[in-house]
Amino acid sequence: MMDVCLLGTGGMLPMPKRWLTSLMLRCEGSNILIDCGEGTQIAMKEAGLSPRPIDIMCFTHYHADHISGLPGMLLGMGNSDRTEPVIMIGPKGLFNVVKSLRCIAPELPFELRFIELDQNTEQYKIGPYIINCFKVNHNILCYGYSVTVPRKGRFDPEAAKEKGISVKYWNRLQHGETVKAENGEVYTPDMVMGPERKGLKVTYTTDTRPCENIVKAAEGADIFICEGMYGEPGMEEKARSYKHMTMREAAELAAKAKPTELWFTHYSPSMINPKQYIGDMKKIFPECRCGKDGMMRELDYTDE
Amino acid sequence: MMDVCLLGTGGMLPMPKRWLTSLMLRCEGSNILIDCGEGTQIAMKEAGLSPRPIDIMCFTHYHADHISGLPGMLLGMGNSDRTEPVIMIGPKGLFNVVKSLRCIAPELPFELRFIELDQNTEQYKIGPYIINCFKVNHNILCYGYSVTVPRKGRFDPEAAKEKGISVKYWNRLQHGETVKAENGEVYTPDMVMGPERKGLKVTYTTDTRPCENIVKAAEGADIFICEGMYGEPGMEEKARSYKHMTMREAAELAAKAKPTELWFTHYSPSMINPKQYIGDMKKIFPECRCGKDGMMRELDYTDE
Repeated sequence: MMDVCLLGTGGMLPMPKRWLTSLMLRCEGSNILIDCGEGTQIAMKEAGLSPRPIDIMCFTHYHADHISGLPGMLLGMGNSDRTEPVIMIGPKGLFNVVKSLRCIAPELPFELRFIELDQNTEQYKIGPYIINCFKVNHNILCYGYSVTVPRKGRFDPEAAKEKGISVKYWNRLQHGETVKAENGEVYTPDMVMGPERKGLKVTYTTDTRPCENIVKAAEGADIFICEGMYGEPGMEEKARSYKHMTMREAAELAAKAKPTELWFTHYSPSMINPKQYIGDMKKIFPECRCGKDGMMRELDYTDE
Repeated sequence: MMDVCLLGTGGMLPMPKRWLTSLMLRCEGSNILIDCGEGTQIAMKEAGLSPRPIDIMCFTHYHADHISGLPGMLLGMGNSDRTEPVIMIGPKGLFNVVKSLRCIAPELPFELRFIELDQNTEQYKIGPYIINCFKVNHNILCYGYSVTVPRKGRFDPEAAKEKGISVKYWNRLQHGETVKAENGEVYTPDMVMGPERKGLKVTYTTDTRPCENIVKAAEGADIFICEGMYGEPGMEEKARSYKHMTMREAAELAAKAKPTELWFTHYSPSMINPKQYIGDMKKIFPECRCGKDGMMRELDYTDE
């Protein structure tokens, strides 16, 4: 199970009634926060979420609307008595940006660990998550993230019986343990487990032109959360020159990648009501929705 | 005339429905912003105010809740096409703090000029304002601010007639001009203007223990805006050890300084409803009010 909460949906500037774009993922008591603009800690409180279990923070890039809320967030995590280290992932330069911003949050009761990205794609396995980072195309170095919670294969009792493995070892093998049996034999989980099944996957990208990396990343996603900065026709040139994406371009990416669902986010302050364009977008990719602040979804495996 | 808008009233952490403490003053199209925590730019929009005319920014100190909104505010001012310089006033170290925070707002279309405070009191005359900065008592170097809009004396036509000054020069003299008359005489404003009258004055202080500097600063203020972090009895020791002030201590300061009015602000996140303590506070200083987000007052001269 993975909980998905889109904390905010704004781009560029925080507005009354629209927080800046940020995503919280929760699985097994370990949370990932992606982006943290001004006000994200308030959006989180409004959504009823605590900053304490944030074990991983990912940043797409270092424009203020994606990271200006960091000092306050770190202090809030400190005030919630967190002492466990926090892993921070972001484009090259992360350590220096965080160091600078921490001039107003110098003392924290937990350690920060840094992963700086500079490759086309990078993968990290942390806690229950596999995090795939992919380079996108903005006016500064910028990454998108796919977060997957993998799912083990099905236990195969027939295979276990065939190999003469006593029932008393089955549970430990199902939980990934290698077992040395009383008869001296060594049993490994792969002897009794079927092939890995489809896990849960969320892909998040903002502040980019459409590009092939995004299509690859969003393939098989349960939710693909993508910038749709502008909805009204005629904004394509502006989107191109500022290296942003229109709702139409996001829908076209989704049509190629075929995620289960597309959520738009990172709306321009000039776009008051993104929903007015959703009809046209559904013609391109039917399973699309306008993200809104605090939108939640509990993702669960489709077959049990 | 001076407009006073208390943008937020929170201390420590921004909360849903309570912005961090910040004050906007407006006079003759030139605005002063005092403190700028996370979310202040949104509070300003909610109050219907623009960031563009902010000519002066004052900071009490560099704890995050008083300055974390600075990068976003500066970018907002840039987006509003401001090109005129902005004067920044704050305790020693201001330049370095602002430089660090600007790692995410490096390019601005206007210049920043810095005034760093380190004396017990300092005075600056900028635009329509006289700004008196006074050192207070927090766990880091911290200042309060009194902002005064001075008022010229009354024009004395009898004095002008007595001195034989032709009526055609009166208007220029009233506007502070020194006039060389056709007859060769030189007339100065002080020849025809009475003594300076009481101007408009607002005093603002947060994050401090009570101290004599505050009493002196708030004397004669039309509005004295003061931290009242805690209202419930029993919090005195906590206030003392963290170098904050209770509502009672603020009211006692007001009883000594005798401003026209006291507004409480900088409430602890633990204090949900400060109004429940106002009855007790009025026994100490009757003209007190609980500040609330967006509270506005138009100050005007009492006699015309």
